[in-house]
Amino acid sequence: MEAAVRQALHAAERGRQRFLADLRRFVAFPSVSADPRRIGQVRACASWLAELLAGVGLDEVEVAPSGGHPVVLAAWRRLPGAPTLLVYGHYDVQPEGPRAAWRSPPFEARLRGEHLYGRGASDDKGQLLAWVAALRAWTSSGGPPVNVVCLFDGEEEIGSPNLRPLLRRRRGGLAADAAAVSDTRMLGPTRPAIVYGLRGSIRAEVELQGPPTDLHSGTFGGAVHNPLQALAELVAGLHNSRGRVRVPGFYDRVRVAPASERAAMARDGPTDAELLRAAGVERAAGEPGWTLYERTTIRPALTVNAIAGGRPEPLGSAVIPAGARAVLEARLVPDQDPAEVERLLRRHLAASLPAGIRARVRVGTGSPPVLVDRHHPAVQAAELAYRRAFGAPAVLLRSGGTIAAVGMLADALDLPLVLMGFALPSDRLHAPNERAHLPTLARGVDTCVWFLAQLRSALSAASSRSSGLARPP
Amino acid sequence: MEAAVRQALHAAERGRQRFLADLRRFVAFPSVSADPRRIGQVRACASWLAELLAGVGLDEVEVAPSGGHPVVLAAWRRLPGAPTLLVYGHYDVQPEGPRAAWRSPPFEARLRGEHLYGRGASDDKGQLLAWVAALRAWTSSGGPPVNVVCLFDGEEEIGSPNLRPLLRRRRGGLAADAAAVSDTRMLGPTRPAIVYGLRGSIRAEVELQGPPTDLHSGTFGGAVHNPLQALAELVAGLHNSRGRVRVPGFYDRVRVAPASERAAMARDGPTDAELLRAAGVERAAGEPGWTLYERTTIRPALTVNAIAGGRPEPLGSAVIPAGARAVLEARLVPDQDPAEVERLLRRHLAASLPAGIRARVRVGTGSPPVLVDRHHPAVQAAELAYRRAFGAPAVLLRSGGTIAAVGMLADALDLPLVLMGFALPSDRLHAPNERAHLPTLARGVDTCVWFLAQLRSALSAASSRSSGLARPP
Repeated sequence: MEAAVRQALHAAERGRQRFLADLRRFVAFPSVSADPRRIGQVRACASWLAELLAGVGLDEVEVAPSGGHPVVLAAWRRLPGAPTLLVYGHYDVQPEGPRAAWRSPPFEARLRGEHLYGRGASDDKGQLLAWVAALRAWTSSGGPPVNVVCLFDGEEEIGSPNLRPLLRRRRGGLAADAAAVSDTRMLGPTRPAIVYGLRGSIRAEVELQGPPTDLHSGTFGGAVHNPLQALAELVAGLHNSRGRVRVPGFYDRVRVAPASERAAMARDGPTDAELLRAAGVERAAGEPGWTLYERTTIRPALTVNAIAGGRPEPLGSAVIPAGARAVLEARLVPDQDPAEVERLLRRHLAASLPAGIRARVRVGTGSPPVLVDRHHPAVQAAELAYRRAFGAPAVLLRSGGTIAAVGMLADALDLPLVLMGFALPSDRLHAPNERAHLPTLARGVDTCVWFLAQLRSALSAASSRSSGLARPP
Repeated sequence: MEAAVRQALHAAERGRQRFLADLRRFVAFPSVSADPRRIGQVRACASWLAELLAGVGLDEVEVAPSGGHPVVLAAWRRLPGAPTLLVYGHYDVQPEGPRAAWRSPPFEARLRGEHLYGRGASDDKGQLLAWVAALRAWTSSGGPPVNVVCLFDGEEEIGSPNLRPLLRRRRGGLAADAAAVSDTRMLGPTRPAIVYGLRGSIRAEVELQGPPTDLHSGTFGGAVHNPLQALAELVAGLHNSRGRVRVPGFYDRVRVAPASERAAMARDGPTDAELLRAAGVERAAGEPGWTLYERTTIRPALTVNAIAGGRPEPLGSAVIPAGARAVLEARLVPDQDPAEVERLLRRHLAASLPAGIRARVRVGTGSPPVLVDRHHPAVQAAELAYRRAFGAPAVLLRSGGTIAAVGMLADALDLPLVLMGFALPSDRLHAPNERAHLPTLARGVDTCVWFLAQLRSALSAASSRSSGLARPP
């Protein structure tokens, strides 16, 4: 096995330029799943990815309809009896936002120093391609040591609304012994991390309606309710002055992490200073009594993502706008339930509304928070793989982010999960000037190469321990 | 004189179709002064208007550079020794806002029933054209009974930032005995009104900056200040729960109207029910202890016109936005001073800002509130003119709106002013589906015809009273 790994690592090394070229082309697709005008471009990205996977030597390549943007499937299962790994990644990206905020065009990948800039370069196209490159390294070196099924989502950034039914329909073909998801962050280029907890989320769009049409603010200013002011008051009323969420019941089900876990978090996790540096700000905010790492992982949060009302041109129009909209997002922790938080939020918003203003609240499909088994052999295999590839131990972290698909994979396929990401805190995920750190991605490819090898022995040993029967080597 | 008026009124009657055709063409120019991309179209509108004035038989027609959008000037002064009236109107319009909110294209005037729909149909192209039509009626009937100077502004909707210097430079050519401004509302189609008070205004753009770039709201939600939340809190903090402005000192200089004026306002002004009906809402808001008419005229107001932050697409992007902007507007009453209110507002905003958020506040040129002499003979001439044309007495009203130019005309040219408008509360000024009521505009034309006749005797009598010398009839 060691010789085979060496051979695959050499192949990965030889594939660095190819990796870069693939990533450039991958970034060029504006596969923004949230933008209905880009359905065709998301689809084109899926087709390109499918061709890439076929070229790597994978079988059963398919652009599978999901009801929304397609899922790209592929498999390599030529080792009957050997464990099977499911690899999850996503080829869709966040909206790029205003072009002016980008130093270079978001969908034309640009190399500056060790970074490749472009929307999706890190989240998640770069990380997804790390798996593709590792599989190519193995297929060009006699074949992977375990069976592999790839599931590349086209709707991760919109909460994978069509994934659960697809997982159910395809349960047979997607059966595996573990799943690897590379869509999370490390602590730094030499500080790998495995994530064992994700926050859940729900997103709500709140639309307030006041007068039937915009009103002249000279004629009516001071006499009628302004829905934009009401919206500002509603948003301001979501937190108290100490930074705690004021929605009644919001914290009721929040599980308090045990002291041992908080101690481990303090030891392994990012410090307040590191998180502030990553955010680029000097001062913290939020709930007192918790470190920033805790505030963003084991504590829930309620964020206003967007507000729009009136016409915001410089010095604007002299109107009381007829309506105003806000997008709110709650990040949830165990044991908060998205459906329950939705009810609490709706009740609070309805109770806070001034007379004369009507509200419409739309809530997207929620994702529950996820905790995975930190002690599963597959997680240990990942720890070993990181140590080999990065020369440094991986720490076990909780993440503040949400990957809706992770909960679905665990539920629908009953799989142990390994969240082994290669993004860096400085990658500007979801923001303008997103970038990938190429040396880190290269080590990520090596980590995937190693993981496939480690996984075989880890799962075979686990299986022999649990069944009492040794699988063939 | 009576025979000459009859002749002019007949000419105005014959000109109704011509008036409608002119208004349709006038509306077709998207002369949005706030939109820098429409400089050329504002200019084209000015040229068209100048040609129209020349066709009416006015002299000294000129598209006068102002440093911003041009002012259109014209004059008819063939009666040496007779009084001179300055007519002020504006050919620029408010931004039309989103096309989807309009039943028909904002710059293609459409006739539905008695209304002509289009941006500017009422504010102020229709009212300006009422003067043009009245002047045409007189020039085709032997000439107006007084001298006339027309000054048609291209920047009223942006606060006439370049008008004051132009008035100073042109003081000689603009000298007059009174000015008529038709840019205000009546109470209804049979309830004419003369406005004797306008609120002043200042507009401020508040831009908050938090992190240097949008942040992933999963990774950082709960740990850093969100400038959009800070903006919502800032806006919410501008009023207390009773609807009073919380900016310290804001009310200090507000002059309390005498009981006699409040009684007259209660007698002549719109009722709460009428104002709510005009706004299309069921419930009032604002300062307790004052009628809605009072809240919008003799009491100041602070309105948030617009907020923009984050990306407001449905269910938005999962970010803590780097920045957020709001447009605020204060409407001022005597004796509030725009510069002082600007200082108070800046101080309050700075004091309300949470740590970790930076603010930039830009304030446009303010306009002071205006009160004109209700008892001036020119106002009495307007009362008579309305009574003749509408068959109903005009009431004297205060308006909640602001016409920056009015204060400038009074200051720079030292003129008595008559605010004699023909807009209706249902005209949807500044809003989508703005419209003009054609029968009311027709009576407006007749009112202008009458006014020119009444003004001659009113000002001549006043002049003879004050100087002891009778002018030639």
